[in-house]
Amino acid sequence: MTKIRTGIIGGAGYTAGELIRILMYHPQAELAFVQSSSNAGNPIFEVHRDLVGDTDLVFVADPDFANCDVIFLCMGHGKSKEFVQSNDIPASVKIIDLSHDYRLKSEGNDFVYGLPELNRDLIRGAAHVANPGCFATGIQLTVLPLAAAGLLTGELHVHAITGSTGAGQAPSKTSHFSWRNSNVSVYKAFEHQHLGEITQSVKQLQPSFHKAINFIPVRGNHTRGIFVSTYTEYTGTIEEAIQLYETYYASHPFVFVTGENPDVKQVVNTNKAILHLEKHGNKLMILSVTDNLLKGASGQAVQNMNILFGLDEKTGLNLKPVSF
Amino acid sequence: MTKIRTGIIGGAGYTAGELIRILMYHPQAELAFVQSSSNAGNPIFEVHRDLVGDTDLVFVADPDFANCDVIFLCMGHGKSKEFVQSNDIPASVKIIDLSHDYRLKSEGNDFVYGLPELNRDLIRGAAHVANPGCFATGIQLTVLPLAAAGLLTGELHVHAITGSTGAGQAPSKTSHFSWRNSNVSVYKAFEHQHLGEITQSVKQLQPSFHKAINFIPVRGNHTRGIFVSTYTEYTGTIEEAIQLYETYYASHPFVFVTGENPDVKQVVNTNKAILHLEKHGNKLMILSVTDNLLKGASGQAVQNMNILFGLDEKTGLNLKPVSF
Amino acid sequence: MTKIRTGIIGGAGYTAGELIRILMYHPQAELAFVQSSSNAGNPIFEVHRDLVGDTDLVFVADPDFANCDVIFLCMGHGKSKEFVQSNDIPASVKIIDLSHDYRLKSEGNDFVYGLPELNRDLIRGAAHVANPGCFATGIQLTVLPLAAAGLLTGELHVHAITGSTGAGQAPSKTSHFSWRNSNVSVYKAFEHQHLGEITQSVKQLQPSFHKAINFIPVRGNHTRGIFVSTYTEYTGTIEEAIQLYETYYASHPFVFVTGENPDVKQVVNTNKAILHLEKHGNKLMILSVTDNLLKGASGQAVQNMNILFGLDEKTGLNLKPVSF
Amino acid sequence: MTKIRTGIIGGAGYTAGELIRILMYHPQAELAFVQSSSNAGNPIFEVHRDLVGDTDLVFVADPDFANCDVIFLCMGHGKSKEFVQSNDIPASVKIIDLSHDYRLKSEGNDFVYGLPELNRDLIRGAAHVANPGCFATGIQLTVLPLAAAGLLTGELHVHAITGSTGAGQAPSKTSHFSWRNSNVSVYKAFEHQHLGEITQSVKQLQPSFHKAINFIPVRGNHTRGIFVSTYTEYTGTIEEAIQLYETYYASHPFVFVTGENPDVKQVVNTNKAILHLEKHGNKLMILSVTDNLLKGASGQAVQNMNILFGLDEKTGLNLKPVSF
Repeated sequence: MTKIRTGIIGGAGYTAGELIRILMYHPQAELAFVQSSSNAGNPIFEVHRDLVGDTDLVFVADPDFANCDVIFLCMGHGKSKEFVQSNDIPASVKIIDLSHDYRLKSEGNDFVYGLPELNRDLIRGAAHVANPGCFATGIQLTVLPLAAAGLLTGELHVHAITGSTGAGQAPSKTSHFSWRNSNVSVYKAFEHQHLGEITQSVKQLQPSFHKAINFIPVRGNHTRGIFVSTYTEYTGTIEEAIQLYETYYASHPFVFVTGENPDVKQVVNTNKAILHLEKHGNKLMILSVTDNLLKGASGQAVQNMNILFGLDEKTGLNLKPVSF
Repeated sequence: MTKIRTGIIGGAGYTAGELIRILMYHPQAELAFVQSSSNAGNPIFEVHRDLVGDTDLVFVADPDFANCDVIFLCMGHGKSKEFVQSNDIPASVKIIDLSHDYRLKSEGNDFVYGLPELNRDLIRGAAHVANPGCFATGIQLTVLPLAAAGLLTGELHVHAITGSTGAGQAPSKTSHFSWRNSNVSVYKAFEHQHLGEITQSVKQLQPSFHKAINFIPVRGNHTRGIFVSTYTEYTGTIEEAIQLYETYYASHPFVFVTGENPDVKQVVNTNKAILHLEKHGNKLMILSVTDNLLKGASGQAVQNMNILFGLDEKTGLNLKPVSF
Repeated sequence: MTKIRTGIIGGAGYTAGELIRILMYHPQAELAFVQSSSNAGNPIFEVHRDLVGDTDLVFVADPDFANCDVIFLCMGHGKSKEFVQSNDIPASVKIIDLSHDYRLKSEGNDFVYGLPELNRDLIRGAAHVANPGCFATGIQLTVLPLAAAGLLTGELHVHAITGSTGAGQAPSKTSHFSWRNSNVSVYKAFEHQHLGEITQSVKQLQPSFHKAINFIPVRGNHTRGIFVSTYTEYTGTIEEAIQLYETYYASHPFVFVTGENPDVKQVVNTNKAILHLEKHGNKLMILSVTDNLLKGASGQAVQNMNILFGLDEKTGLNLKPVSF
Repeated sequence: MTKIRTGIIGGAGYTAGELIRILMYHPQAELAFVQSSSNAGNPIFEVHRDLVGDTDLVFVADPDFANCDVIFLCMGHGKSKEFVQSNDIPASVKIIDLSHDYRLKSEGNDFVYGLPELNRDLIRGAAHVANPGCFATGIQLTVLPLAAAGLLTGELHVHAITGSTGAGQAPSKTSHFSWRNSNVSVYKAFEHQHLGEITQSVKQLQPSFHKAINFIPVRGNHTRGIFVSTYTEYTGTIEEAIQLYETYYASHPFVFVTGENPDVKQVVNTNKAILHLEKHGNKLMILSVTDNLLKGASGQAVQNMNILFGLDEKTGLNLKPVSF
């Protein structure tokens, strides 16, 4: 079988690095090119320094659309739309966008929201996919089965703690090691930009839902991984809830419901999501752990690519967990 | 003025170490003895190794009640009651207990709950003080002003992330560096033992309160500090809320209301609590950061000692923040 | 081709976990059994909790020698010899021992020292392989080319900083998160047990070498990875040194000489070793970074297995770096 | 007694922050002003956010030399000389410079090198003090007694691991949390700029010394603290060495020789230095741990101030260790 020829636009950032790490060993794909305006001409391993010995590929200035089947847009929020509009991308080239530019439905936006656990069938036939946000992925996985069953009756109470890589590699006050190490802080409480796509997905499954989604995002003191806790009113038993979730995710190879409290390092460096449910009083609590750069970004992008091209969803994504 | 003669029971643990660190430089107190059954006869600095050069004191096997004015019980939960019952502690010796043994009111329990921001006047006249739990302190500080004003009308939604020292020095699976480093996990969701004292305090101020306190405690990837987020329904404006909190805490020298999102390292190695309030929709969010070993344990114990002996509350507690 | 049937003895520890993570996706190998006395009957994913969803295999009490081609001994130092002596292991079953029991040559010890960059040809024909220590691997890689060229003329000055997983999962004072986090400490300076195998290898290549190897091992504040700096007298130019190293390692697919200062995270979760050389005055400094659990343990064990069974050395070892 | 009126030039950086934290509770000193060009007019606690509630002082644009007895220059390397030359600083105002501008002796440089353990008597009578570098402090403390006894006969082999605050608060690639967390790396091996002052001090005590000082500086994965290991040839016994060091440091209140391997957190947030000695073969190894921001910078600056003004060296420096 001919390998899928992949191109990456904006190759110097974190999500691009992760895509390269996955695609260079993907059995059914190959890296046709990695574009980077700022690093054109430089070996990739000079930017992504762990790739010494893995690839001698060099960043290119201009994408070679003619020789690729799919491109991943990794340029950052706001720049994907600009890129798509200012480039003459052949219709034969599929697009997977990792920014938020196309996640929300709107007139003229033909991108399918690329959460396989919500939209797998739609993705299969799509030309363009908007890859979900990292918080948005971890949070949606905690509520999709309830929404699909029309069982969301109360407000959602969501708290999520993210690793530093979620904020990208641009240096800032809050990315400084001396500040962030051993620190915990909050930002954009109740107003995080991912609330839009979360709400959109919930309403897609349960259009009647109109309660508040209270979301407190926290900056953790680690690099990779998102820990989400969600709770909401639920009148069923815990057994019913677990069955609901297990049934919903039965056909989804990266999502697992477990009987114990999860921790972030169970999934770091994998594309997996591990869930855990508990009932306390009238509340159902659902926890999820994901790797923000994989299931929350580049791993999911490859999962989407696999679906787009009719491959097994897990192809190239049997990644060794780092575990420690 | 004669210095307060202090004794520590159970001197080898974390909270005892912190007490020693504070009391050895407290201008109005002196360490009369530090008791430790397991370390009797050994220099303190061999256990608390940062105290090399600070003190040559040696652990003693038996408390010398005759030569002290106050003892701090640092033996761990369940053991304080046992100690008090099996020892003939003179009535002249005040007791500050750092365990949970005496925090909940009950028949025959004459310990005052030692949260100065709630019970300062009661503490002043007390013989026995039950020092609050670390989570309990950080959480109560987020709601006391609302409760005092009778304004708690809805459920409390509480999330708190703690440093590892909150769990003490006994080695366990979840205290292993290889596991905990860069990890995030949850434990005892909705069922943490501190819910008892939190509820007790809220009802002390607002007896009508009978809503759920939903509390998710999280293990963070740092050693010191607790980050609390609480939110609940509130019909007033944010300005009214801030005024309510500023007024409530005006006379309390360790609690500060600030205009920006706080972070844990603002208070590490201090006895301070920093709060921040925001209004989102019909919710008031109150954040607090505290050091679990100081305002959440030993610092607060010394604050209580200061109150018990009529000293300025801050005496000996102008600690240099570590900041980084 | 029939897959290599592998068995793991002592399956609950860190190195066994890493072996499982590698072997479960190794294209030419399969896990025949994972033995653990303490966990017999339990699912592997209950111990190695990141393996949820990856394997449903259950620990067995007794090794099934009849159905395997190779066993990995992961029981800890001192126990391998005991196991080999007390079990009737068929001659057809190859043994790769991860302990130090068979690393030093002695009468009756038929284990080949399994550092492929030193002994690849010997390993190829071996029945039994003694997998090197983690420090020993990282350190030897910094000096093998010099020794092979007979150019070691002065003392070796070696400093190495290791992640916490090198010490295994048994809880101890120095593995406690509250102690180790943000801490740096030294242990067994000049007397580390790996000095034996390092000296043995150096003398194998340069029998005349009789200078001191000064080695200071340091406990770092991270979980995975060893950073080694070695320097020694060297009269050649830096260009000659680089050429010497590049030539030596040209046929070794996991070792790379780079032009920039390396950092540990370049190799974490990979089987690679990255070296860097500088000349200062009359000293040649050689740096190496490796992952103590992979190139320093389980990755190298699989590399040895590949060699033993005539596979490409890299088979199953194209691991996604964690990078952050 | 009138308090010493202190001024800080360049008040927004890390070392200035530490000075403020110490001086605000120093019993014999007061903060006359804190100057910052970039932050003039802003409250200090908006930059040093842990100072909320501790001080309402505001940064000033211009130093008020008339109302101060001593100024601390915290502007960064190269800028102190510029400041001193372009400002008309009254002769009555003592200067303590924390940059490297005046550390090396040269024609016209009247600054005394401010390492109290080397130059206490000279500092006492000085008008201007050049505060030592952080690495330089930790390293010199490991060799001063040997040099003073004329016992340095071989090369010095020095390895030191520093926390991130040593590099200041300017964001850079190597200060990014996502890179530095769990990472170890080296920089400026054999060429670090502190070698100049170290050599100068060693030769001050032992003018005959002319051997190489081999120094490998390492970036650790923590924020505060330097771990130094030094070894060199030594023909005496370990007992003699210990006695030599204990005698040398007997009158120096911040330096302690201990019988056990030290760790960095023993001294974090204190002005102490803890040493440990071992003899291996013909080598004497001397370890030191210090806090790079305190004994390595601002704590030592206050120690120097105390000496300059005839106070007990420890005044204001009985700081609570953070310990965890």
